[in-house]
Amino acid sequence: MDLKKLLAPRVIAVVGASEKEGFGGDTCRNVMSYADKDRVYFINPGRDAVFGKKCWPSLESLPEDIDLVVVCTPRKTVEDILRQAAARGAGGAVVYASGYSEVGTEEGREADRRLRALCAELDMALMGPNCAGFMNYVDKVSAFAFISAERDRTGAVGIISQSGQLCLSLMDSPSMRFSYSISAGNCSVVSMEDYLQYLVDDEHTRVIGLYLEGVTQPARFAEGLRAAALKRKPVVVLKTGRSEKGSRVAASHTGSLSGADRMYDAIFKKFGVIRVRDVEELLATTQLFATLPCLPTRPGFASINLSGGETGVCADMGDMEGIDYPDFQPETLEKLRALLPSYASPANPLDTTATISYDADVYARVLRTVMDDPSVGMVIVGYTLLYEIADPCIHYMARGIEKVMAEGGAKPVAMLPFLENSRNPEYLDRLAAAGVPVLPPPVYGFAALRYLKEFISYRPEEHTLELAIPASAPGGERRTLSEYDSGAILREYGIPTPEGGIAASADEAASIADRVGYPVAMKVASADIPHKSDIGGVMLNLKSADEARTAFARIMDNAAERAPAARVDGVFVQKMLKPGLEVIIGVNNDPQFGPAVLVGLGGVFVEIFRDTALLPAPFDRSEAGRMLESLKAIPLFRGYRGKAPLDLEALADMIANVARLASDKRDTLAELDINPVFVYERGQGVCAADALAVVRE
Amino acid sequence: MDLKKLLAPRVIAVVGASEKEGFGGDTCRNVMSYADKDRVYFINPGRDAVFGKKCWPSLESLPEDIDLVVVCTPRKTVEDILRQAAARGAGGAVVYASGYSEVGTEEGREADRRLRALCAELDMALMGPNCAGFMNYVDKVSAFAFISAERDRTGAVGIISQSGQLCLSLMDSPSMRFSYSISAGNCSVVSMEDYLQYLVDDEHTRVIGLYLEGVTQPARFAEGLRAAALKRKPVVVLKTGRSEKGSRVAASHTGSLSGADRMYDAIFKKFGVIRVRDVEELLATTQLFATLPCLPTRPGFASINLSGGETGVCADMGDMEGIDYPDFQPETLEKLRALLPSYASPANPLDTTATISYDADVYARVLRTVMDDPSVGMVIVGYTLLYEIADPCIHYMARGIEKVMAEGGAKPVAMLPFLENSRNPEYLDRLAAAGVPVLPPPVYGFAALRYLKEFISYRPEEHTLELAIPASAPGGERRTLSEYDSGAILREYGIPTPEGGIAASADEAASIADRVGYPVAMKVASADIPHKSDIGGVMLNLKSADEARTAFARIMDNAAERAPAARVDGVFVQKMLKPGLEVIIGVNNDPQFGPAVLVGLGGVFVEIFRDTALLPAPFDRSEAGRMLESLKAIPLFRGYRGKAPLDLEALADMIANVARLASDKRDTLAELDINPVFVYERGQGVCAADALAVVRE
Repeated sequence: MDLKKLLAPRVIAVVGASEKEGFGGDTCRNVMSYADKDRVYFINPGRDAVFGKKCWPSLESLPEDIDLVVVCTPRKTVEDILRQAAARGAGGAVVYASGYSEVGTEEGREADRRLRALCAELDMALMGPNCAGFMNYVDKVSAFAFISAERDRTGAVGIISQSGQLCLSLMDSPSMRFSYSISAGNCSVVSMEDYLQYLVDDEHTRVIGLYLEGVTQPARFAEGLRAAALKRKPVVVLKTGRSEKGSRVAASHTGSLSGADRMYDAIFKKFGVIRVRDVEELLATTQLFATLPCLPTRPGFASINLSGGETGVCADMGDMEGIDYPDFQPETLEKLRALLPSYASPANPLDTTATISYDADVYARVLRTVMDDPSVGMVIVGYTLLYEIADPCIHYMARGIEKVMAEGGAKPVAMLPFLENSRNPEYLDRLAAAGVPVLPPPVYGFAALRYLKEFISYRPEEHTLELAIPASAPGGERRTLSEYDSGAILREYGIPTPEGGIAASADEAASIADRVGYPVAMKVASADIPHKSDIGGVMLNLKSADEARTAFARIMDNAAERAPAARVDGVFVQKMLKPGLEVIIGVNNDPQFGPAVLVGLGGVFVEIFRDTALLPAPFDRSEAGRMLESLKAIPLFRGYRGKAPLDLEALADMIANVARLASDKRDTLAELDINPVFVYERGQGVCAADALAVVRE
Repeated sequence: MDLKKLLAPRVIAVVGASEKEGFGGDTCRNVMSYADKDRVYFINPGRDAVFGKKCWPSLESLPEDIDLVVVCTPRKTVEDILRQAAARGAGGAVVYASGYSEVGTEEGREADRRLRALCAELDMALMGPNCAGFMNYVDKVSAFAFISAERDRTGAVGIISQSGQLCLSLMDSPSMRFSYSISAGNCSVVSMEDYLQYLVDDEHTRVIGLYLEGVTQPARFAEGLRAAALKRKPVVVLKTGRSEKGSRVAASHTGSLSGADRMYDAIFKKFGVIRVRDVEELLATTQLFATLPCLPTRPGFASINLSGGETGVCADMGDMEGIDYPDFQPETLEKLRALLPSYASPANPLDTTATISYDADVYARVLRTVMDDPSVGMVIVGYTLLYEIADPCIHYMARGIEKVMAEGGAKPVAMLPFLENSRNPEYLDRLAAAGVPVLPPPVYGFAALRYLKEFISYRPEEHTLELAIPASAPGGERRTLSEYDSGAILREYGIPTPEGGIAASADEAASIADRVGYPVAMKVASADIPHKSDIGGVMLNLKSADEARTAFARIMDNAAERAPAARVDGVFVQKMLKPGLEVIIGVNNDPQFGPAVLVGLGGVFVEIFRDTALLPAPFDRSEAGRMLESLKAIPLFRGYRGKAPLDLEALADMIANVARLASDKRDTLAELDINPVFVYERGQGVCAADALAVVRE
């Protein structure tokens, strides 16, 4: 299967060419507006010409072979056309028709199976079915089923959308400029993951925008994200299904497995993927990356505005989004004082007052001065660029900005309007040509700047860019291991657990207790009794061999009486641990993406404040350390209120070992819950006080 | 001072009328475009006419008396003109000129003092100086110094802005419709608080929008907000100064006292004021309120969209903003199944699929069906209304919406675009005429809907709509009271503290200990020793009269030796408390707005998770109870993990008593810190274990 035949074809045939509204007519209209027409053949046995362009009666009648066939006709005609196209050399096909798996009937599913089998047989890269097609603006290929206003949209953003409507909305936006725009539809043959890999490899695509409902090929997905991360190519994702209702919508819409949303968040973080909240953010963020000639080399921002009110909004919104405005150097302030009116008070964010916006040279000098401050990585120019220009100052400002950008050595600049109204297309283009994107208003604009800041701060070499994806869909029955057996798995991976063993008799209990040292805790050893204390199956703080013997008898009696059906392996005798700060470490094995490790402080910190970190395995010790750093509760480990600092190193080791364990056992371990882990003072280590593993075999 | 003469004048004179660019020319241009020209006189001794309208040589020469004078000339001319205007009956003045207190020089401050004195003498309501003036769209009065594109802007939103630039930006927006638009400037004479009260009283203004940098008349401000709350008139505020840098900007811009930002948040919450993050949100939220014919009577929302992708975005963004989408009733679902294509799966949010958007009647029936569901309070129609209409479905959708709105009995409807692109003005007007606002894209749009939801959920009768504003600016020296004296203030207000007393001798210590019961704690009683344990001034858990006697001697010796300069009142003997859940209650007395009470759980909950509630005094017991409800940690009070529920009633009583105390002592109490309060099981009350008060006298 060769995606180039589909996405960058030399010769194209449109079957079902027409002038009527609908798939055929709209596809032909798009071809006439956007495509290199000489490389396109229209096919319709009933017409001599469409929009003045010759129509051929059949694929067979064409004077040359084709790469791509665009099928505008209904489902029942598709298979024949694909066979005829393959006979003429086609390796790519776009199928708009619906009536496949998306309708949810057996007939639809059967049509889908037949289509996939046929494409396998013909080695055909098929887009769709039930899709809106694609545009390749770089090579002037148009195979798209809906029309929008005609304009040059060629740019550096590659879009893949699992929704045709959202794809069209993005194309309708005057500020969006694309390399490719792909409405992927059902993805029965060529998958979303294939398109992703294609755009990662494509040199014309500087930024990838993805509207995602779900992933069907997790390993390919991870490969694509890894390649993008290593190339430092930004991937901006709008993934629905954050909420319970949203996840239901995504599942019913394309039948994708939408998966646990938090796992997606964790995967995106690992691979440096930017996750946005809606389509406007997708647009603003991709355009920001695609328009800037280079990315900032440091995360400090300068903000320049024409009024105090606007400056205040930038200060506050920047603060809310974690945008750092470093104080200007004394030399910068001195130069600004010389350039600005006497009543201006230079600072970052900067209120220049409106007067300087009527002089392009002064404006350029102020911009250059701010830009040259060594702590500044990027400049945000505040100005409400209206649709209809009412105030002439934009003429001077734009000239000033263009001058600075043309001089060379410029740092990145973006313009931030305070109201959407909407950005004047002429100035939008002029500023974009100078490498200056115009953002949407502050709530969106500062979010996009935050994503940019996070992207430049991400270092792929600090992340293990893999997922521990299970070999096959997890099967088998869930089986909960006993505490002792669960602990055994931990010890296998060097994870400290309390010393102890299973006693089959009172004497054995006493001898284990003698060996590990007093006091000891004793618990009934049975995978069938989940709540051991409820049946009198737990006795703590036993201080002698005699006490251990008595406890053994009591526990076995209680179990026999109150859980007569349970299989009992004996009594688990353990050294009592001295208490430490309680941490929980959990593993959950996602059916698609494999195991992820969750860490948090025990009790209310997890349950009420949800202060946890989640990271998909595999990962190493330094990544485990950064998980801990990301907890709000981290000060508690660092010598809180005069207490001694705790052993964060040992805890990071334990987390990394859990990740190794989870990664190795990806095909069998369903869940692992280590709760609590006691964390002691620095140098004194950690210990897994209790653990419970669930396996599927 | 009569604000009607300023804001709703019958006869107006513009002094400095001109055709040139600048204050005079732009004001005259605005008069010619917007005003009832017959009620306006242009004054300029050097011209016969301006824009074809007769010019008079002086105020004296006018044929009738005036209400308002608009002064377009520089500062040095202002005082004479005001005197002449007053002689011709003027009670209102707009002064654009700058060079007053905003420049920060002594000359500027002196000019300001003279201006204020003159206005007091002439009983003149003056707007400005250093302002852009105002527009009264209702009475067709134009006294505004900047021009924007000409269009009808008459509506129901009254805007007050402390920034001329932001005021102009709002006026430039095609979707904004106003009753009044006021650029208040320095507010030397008529204050922001005066304008607020005026718009609260004004029947044409249904919503007030306020860009606020700071408050100078806190009592008037509170009065205005109270009046708005009782009238259920929404006040939407953009207040800069949330961040440390933003607060510096606000202070330097107009010299306003910007105050602690969290206090503003707490005041806004108390009075049901909506606080927005930027100008676009101010616009969207005010327009939403002003356009809806009526507000929803319940907070449940229904979402209707044309595609699965859009439906997923609505589900997720709604969830993030706390928008509740109740499940539809079975009858609603049944009706929808009959109306929608077979492959649609009806739910809330609803994906209707695009097909129904091409039939106005079907669209109307779907909208009506969803609207009639009893759990729905408002309907959000998802549709990306483009600037240039490419897809004809909006024609059918708009007709369908208009039909439903015209039938009567409609619930509120808003349209939500997914991209800003930007909303087609013709449809914007047409939908607004039907009572349907078009929101900005989801991140803004759902925030505006959340503000609406919060507004309809706010009940003014549940809040004490007052502030305990100190009589005068707090003066005097700060003095920290001893623990005993601090406790005495609490006891005065019925707040439980541990029993005890000050002992001047060892025998007295023993007798107090006998009275309160053992064990006791003993601490050196001195306001001069802040860290008592550091000097050996604290002894705990003393179990007999003898131990108390010995402790007395030891503590006095330690104090004499290690804090020889301290004034020592004796030793404070207290019954040891049994420990409970630790809560802190604090009072901070804001120099402008008076005391506010802060409540939170002790230790990490306050310090790391910042889980606190703040409410300005005065307030009652039920408000104190709602403060506790607002804590994330509230589950800890409710019988967490099988523990007994705690005495929330007694804690709410204590908080209400602290509010009463703080309110009564607003002129002297600077700070109060009760830390910890022990909260016991239900029925067993609370106790203030330690307290520290700081007074200024």
